[in-house]
Amino acid sequence: MPSPVELILKKRNGAALSEAELTLLVNGLLSGEVTDYQMSAWLMATYFRGLNDAETVALTRAMLHSGKILDLKSVVLPKVDKHSTGGVGDKISLCLAPLVAACGVCVPMVSGRGLAHTGGTLDKLEAIPGFQVQLSAARFERIARDVGTVIMGQTEHIAPADRRIYALRDVTGTVDSVPLIVASILSKKLAEGIDGLVLDVKVGSGAFMKDLPAARTLAKALVRVGKLFGKRVVALLTDMSSPIGRTIGNALETREAIEVLRNAGPEDTRELTLALGSEMLVLGGVTRSRSDARARLQRALADGSAFERFVRLVKAQGGDTRVLEDPSKLPRARATLALTASRAGVVARIDPLELGLCAVALGAGRRHAEDPVDAGAGIEILAPLGTRVKKGASLAILHGRTPALLRAELPRAARAFQIGRSAPAKVSRVLGRI
Amino acid sequence: MPSPVELILKKRNGAALSEAELTLLVNGLLSGEVTDYQMSAWLMATYFRGLNDAETVALTRAMLHSGKILDLKSVVLPKVDKHSTGGVGDKISLCLAPLVAACGVCVPMVSGRGLAHTGGTLDKLEAIPGFQVQLSAARFERIARDVGTVIMGQTEHIAPADRRIYALRDVTGTVDSVPLIVASILSKKLAEGIDGLVLDVKVGSGAFMKDLPAARTLAKALVRVGKLFGKRVVALLTDMSSPIGRTIGNALETREAIEVLRNAGPEDTRELTLALGSEMLVLGGVTRSRSDARARLQRALADGSAFERFVRLVKAQGGDTRVLEDPSKLPRARATLALTASRAGVVARIDPLELGLCAVALGAGRRHAEDPVDAGAGIEILAPLGTRVKKGASLAILHGRTPALLRAELPRAARAFQIGRSAPAKVSRVLGRI
Repeated sequence: MPSPVELILKKRNGAALSEAELTLLVNGLLSGEVTDYQMSAWLMATYFRGLNDAETVALTRAMLHSGKILDLKSVVLPKVDKHSTGGVGDKISLCLAPLVAACGVCVPMVSGRGLAHTGGTLDKLEAIPGFQVQLSAARFERIARDVGTVIMGQTEHIAPADRRIYALRDVTGTVDSVPLIVASILSKKLAEGIDGLVLDVKVGSGAFMKDLPAARTLAKALVRVGKLFGKRVVALLTDMSSPIGRTIGNALETREAIEVLRNAGPEDTRELTLALGSEMLVLGGVTRSRSDARARLQRALADGSAFERFVRLVKAQGGDTRVLEDPSKLPRARATLALTASRAGVVARIDPLELGLCAVALGAGRRHAEDPVDAGAGIEILAPLGTRVKKGASLAILHGRTPALLRAELPRAARAFQIGRSAPAKVSRVLGRI
Repeated sequence: MPSPVELILKKRNGAALSEAELTLLVNGLLSGEVTDYQMSAWLMATYFRGLNDAETVALTRAMLHSGKILDLKSVVLPKVDKHSTGGVGDKISLCLAPLVAACGVCVPMVSGRGLAHTGGTLDKLEAIPGFQVQLSAARFERIARDVGTVIMGQTEHIAPADRRIYALRDVTGTVDSVPLIVASILSKKLAEGIDGLVLDVKVGSGAFMKDLPAARTLAKALVRVGKLFGKRVVALLTDMSSPIGRTIGNALETREAIEVLRNAGPEDTRELTLALGSEMLVLGGVTRSRSDARARLQRALADGSAFERFVRLVKAQGGDTRVLEDPSKLPRARATLALTASRAGVVARIDPLELGLCAVALGAGRRHAEDPVDAGAGIEILAPLGTRVKKGASLAILHGRTPALLRAELPRAARAFQIGRSAPAKVSRVLGRI
């Protein structure tokens, strides 16, 4: 049996590890035979040397089997989930899960919380009073079966090795390694017991992948490795060079998701929802045509069945459904402050990273994993990309706990907005499909 | 102030760290602000990206200043030490320290213990009953002044950061990085308060550096960085493709060192001693000519002053000087077993790694840092390289605790010896000088 240092040296020197060796490494980390410092040396060696597909499959499998795989045997519908690599203003899961469920595909989601400048689905859902994200496996299955969708937080039983490894990567500079990202995402998603997976790989200044080639490499690896597990997998490359929709922040984004589910909402939020939803319906086998899938989704938005499904989901998970009927009842920040245009022109760029970090500073996100979030905090964009504005016109409203906090963060918000002479070319959020 | 993960990312992405950043990293490791797993990720990133000379100087300085620098102000003689990168049968320090001291250069040595297949000077000296290697700083200085040489073990006060970092490197596959080796060696050696340093960089299958180009790179880096600290530094590249001299093991090697100091001993052990000693005398300013230095050393061996200096050293450090007069009083193994030639021919190769590992297995070395060593255990080579042997002739004698242990290790010892048709070309142990 090779020692931990032999496994590190093997990878460092550019060789491929066997499935047995990768299993030893992952199980050793959990049992203590492989120390954190040895794992982090291996992770850094892997950052430089990479993993081939067989190694990535083996690592994913070892991480997946470090915990429980959710049993959804009683769910007869096809089960398809979506995973996004993380963006700013990304409330798509909230729109997508009930919408796709309303069209006959079960969506069993295990979601995360916000970290760094990106938000988390769980934080957004918890803006709904009473909404419970900690569910037992039995309740997860029951809601998936009865409502057709369920969204819960990762438990200690799901891919515990991924949690340990991710926590190490986060503090050792080994986050942005394609095979490690692939193993992390897939080990958690495969634990949901799904048949298919749609990946939303975000590209641009607000995403982990800053350019299209890097995002394409990640998307291809995710699809390749996912298929090696016998799953139906599709990836969309989507634009993250500006925040999605009009809101950043938990209650604000939940409100926008409700608008979309009521067949309204910002065009780009709708577009992303429909594009990802169409892929999910096709993977779920409801239809073979993406245009037919899109028509079904649009009908479910128009006839109220998507919204009705969201009400059922919130009810099943203990949330107060009255806020869905009247979103003004969602948590609100005590203070607001308008960001105004310093000169006339056209909104040429809204920097998602800067605005995401501003929202975090306002209380919408966390600096450390254990920090609480302020459900009401965030940013409402009043003048989206391409809007012609006069000097002094409101570009955005900042929401936060105190006027002092808002004033302190105003310069950062101002930096995020660029006023130019002409409108930027209008581009689709969907940049590619793999 | 940059966070640990920022320092890791900076190195990982190929940038150079500033002196302030490297100091932060080293001090952070000792204070706990930088965790072991962060340091090991940084070490692996450094393995791949390297350090430039300014970074290596800064890292060395931070490691050096993590502890005390020995004060040898009362020593008026020039102070020069030797460091070897580690070999098999390497008892040169025992010969060199008293010999060079006898010629008017003070040799204040802080030495290490054996690990892996290489032996350690401290273990060899401790084969002399009573010899103390744990000395206070005051006693270290007093012996250096009174005897002209002193040999002690690394204390917790000398470069503690190096000890922490080396322990991590050892178990995370980051030992063989040139700048990390340079910083580790120089931080300890500069803590001795020396004026000059001669480096014995070993090359070959029994050394960490397996080939000449790699060894030359390390030697050049050691000399360059040492000079940046204002020290006189020379490196010799020496052959480690066969064990040095005729003995491997602590008491056996001490006996061989005594023979050399009595103006006898194997030719190659003498040659290495004279070559390194000449450099030390020149660095110490006793003479400008290496040939004159060599003549002085030979005189000190011939007139007994070198041996007499060893007696004074052993006495000053509490050792029983009677074993120097009668080496048969040195610890001896209970059992011995001869390795015989399986066929007639010429000894064409003696694998130092194999034989070094065999000696460790016999009890001469340690598998773990805390293991005790058996002073009497080891291997005596009866048929050195080029010896013509008949079938059944003794090649070596194994020394160990029990006959069973010796029998178990005999096949490994046999593998180390290659009997060929003709004698290998005789080459000097000294392969180059930098």
